[in-house]
Amino acid sequence: MTDYHELTQAEAVEYARGIENIFPDGAQLESREISDGNLNHVFHITEPASGRGLILKQVLPYAKVVGESVPMSLDRARIENEALRIQGELCPDLSPKVYAYEPDLALMVMEDLSDHIIMRQGLMERGHYPLFAVNIGSFLARTLFFTSDLAMDLLEKKQWVKAFINPELCNITEDLILDAPYKKSRMNVFEPHIRDAVEHIWADTGLHLEVALLREAFLTKAQALLHGDLHSDNIFIKLDSMKVIDPEFAYYGPMGFDIGTIIANLLLNYSGQEGWSTDAQERTDYRLYLLDTVRDLWTQFELQFRKLWNEHAADRMAKTRGYQDLYVARLLQDTIGFAGTIIVCRIHGFIHVADIDQIENAATRERAQRIALEIGAALIKRNRSACSIEEVLDIALKAVGSP
Amino acid sequence: MTDYHELTQAEAVEYARGIENIFPDGAQLESREISDGNLNHVFHITEPASGRGLILKQVLPYAKVVGESVPMSLDRARIENEALRIQGELCPDLSPKVYAYEPDLALMVMEDLSDHIIMRQGLMERGHYPLFAVNIGSFLARTLFFTSDLAMDLLEKKQWVKAFINPELCNITEDLILDAPYKKSRMNVFEPHIRDAVEHIWADTGLHLEVALLREAFLTKAQALLHGDLHSDNIFIKLDSMKVIDPEFAYYGPMGFDIGTIIANLLLNYSGQEGWSTDAQERTDYRLYLLDTVRDLWTQFELQFRKLWNEHAADRMAKTRGYQDLYVARLLQDTIGFAGTIIVCRIHGFIHVADIDQIENAATRERAQRIALEIGAALIKRNRSACSIEEVLDIALKAVGSP
Repeated sequence: MTDYHELTQAEAVEYARGIENIFPDGAQLESREISDGNLNHVFHITEPASGRGLILKQVLPYAKVVGESVPMSLDRARIENEALRIQGELCPDLSPKVYAYEPDLALMVMEDLSDHIIMRQGLMERGHYPLFAVNIGSFLARTLFFTSDLAMDLLEKKQWVKAFINPELCNITEDLILDAPYKKSRMNVFEPHIRDAVEHIWADTGLHLEVALLREAFLTKAQALLHGDLHSDNIFIKLDSMKVIDPEFAYYGPMGFDIGTIIANLLLNYSGQEGWSTDAQERTDYRLYLLDTVRDLWTQFELQFRKLWNEHAADRMAKTRGYQDLYVARLLQDTIGFAGTIIVCRIHGFIHVADIDQIENAATRERAQRIALEIGAALIKRNRSACSIEEVLDIALKAVGSP
Repeated sequence: MTDYHELTQAEAVEYARGIENIFPDGAQLESREISDGNLNHVFHITEPASGRGLILKQVLPYAKVVGESVPMSLDRARIENEALRIQGELCPDLSPKVYAYEPDLALMVMEDLSDHIIMRQGLMERGHYPLFAVNIGSFLARTLFFTSDLAMDLLEKKQWVKAFINPELCNITEDLILDAPYKKSRMNVFEPHIRDAVEHIWADTGLHLEVALLREAFLTKAQALLHGDLHSDNIFIKLDSMKVIDPEFAYYGPMGFDIGTIIANLLLNYSGQEGWSTDAQERTDYRLYLLDTVRDLWTQFELQFRKLWNEHAADRMAKTRGYQDLYVARLLQDTIGFAGTIIVCRIHGFIHVADIDQIENAATRERAQRIALEIGAALIKRNRSACSIEEVLDIALKAVGSP
């Protein structure tokens, strides 16, 4: 990495100019840094005259956490680029195009998605995305199935496990999602008004046992190549399109983590609905839409995953009678458990979500936080005995009294 | 690996002469090839005058399987050397000393253990090894615990997972142990007189489901650094000492595989007892000794594993109430399941055991094979519901009518 240096905005523009077939010669380009610069530089480079643009993302050799700058390996640029390449091959319509990758600069140049919006924003505006469930179901089914032992050559899969060993980014999840929220820790950030609920979680040893088992699965279960961070800020969406970005947390882990992460983010928005509409009917309708989306997402995933299994399973053991049913049943359980942990950590852990935190009224925000914690804890406790996605919906309905 | 070539016996002797502090200058050395040369050359080099000796093992770039020569990576020499180093640090008294490792030649020089006997031979001679259970329990507890996420730095553990990716040797287990015995395959070798029992196993879909789950665990569960081939030919033993050799199958996998392999080998010997003694009392006594050893081995393992956990667990989640009990309970289940698969594959799979195959009388041999298959299949079917090691003993007793 001797040739690495942080690009200036001017250098980024010059680099972008060199990408073939995007901008005409001599184009007038503008650049805007659109990241917070904590982990990466992200430049949005456009030609205002034509409306053309691209994204240039450079990974930084440090992470700014709690005000400190912690050194971090640039290897995550390789991992992100490789994961994007694989996701792009498996789901070309659901992944951003990658125009260039420069390993020495830990830099990627990607499709401009500014005609989409960030899905979290879309949800906060109560947007309806009728294709979302089928698209995300397809993304999950294809990326998880085709990178697993069910579909891959077993020797090649092991080489992929090796290539995607991602200790630093996994460690963030292990600490911030699957550990800190269950104990007193400086990595927990929450408002005093929910201290009693947080302390309840710190004291709940039955809950801790389930989290230990989920954390063990995250640490040991090399089932498929995960996205690893599939929340609603990493999904770009519009009515007729959806793109999944930012797989820098990619590694071989339990499939249910990815599915659970996106379900959790839908339920976080669900928990915060009272902050986003004063109209009771509007809230109820949107909450029911979100629950339908959770159900549809799982149903679509299961349908497509089983279809891929029936048509493309390479490993003979995949054809064992009863194995597919048992596999899917355990997958639902993992999904429910991980969804619970994602919800909990986003309420009193280190990194929160705008769907809750940006609610202005303190009492409404508190109610949203309590609903989310109730749903999260209930999902975690249910995980090993769950049999149906309907249980998730029941838990969510119960937490709000009525939708 | 450009400097690699297969050593002649004379070169092996010259190499051995160069190892410090073993042979005096100008010693008269003798060499004997003691392997079958299918995977490795193993030279036993001795100085008859003093009785001193050493073992020189060179990994070959091919494997001879079913008469064919299949290319194989020399990387397994690195893996074996690294695993021996780790096992030697964790269990210095239970591992052979390694004097030298020459990566370019894929060659290791090790302690001469010819004052021990191979444990399989010891069992066939109805030897009693009163320290065996405590020693193997200690070996298993220490190597499995200290290489797991329970004890290791999580980032370092991931680097070890990466370093021990071992696709070719894992694939042998995946195919020959966890697949072929459950279907018609040219990799199955058995005598016509047990065809009905073998066909029963090929048709037993309930059994196949359990094997699929165990195979999935072998493929995905990166729990600890396994020996990977812990059968009784890889244990050298005498009354006051035990050494575990040959960890070339080492990789990060489910702990229960190692524990199950050694239990399976005790039960294979148990199944063959009628071939090794015509004295009913002698047979009964030795069978009871073997069952006691199975119980003691597990009990010692559990005792030591829990002690290590209580004293040395690094990961906070390891201290979660109830987690250790659940961990050990699931470990016993994995152990029982894998033990069953090892027994089955050694009866009608590709690689057999002398304890059974060398029984001269065909009817006695057949009875031994049927007993072993019955025990193996019953263990596999019991695995997910098992709660106690006593269930293994009950299954074994039932299979012989009375011991």
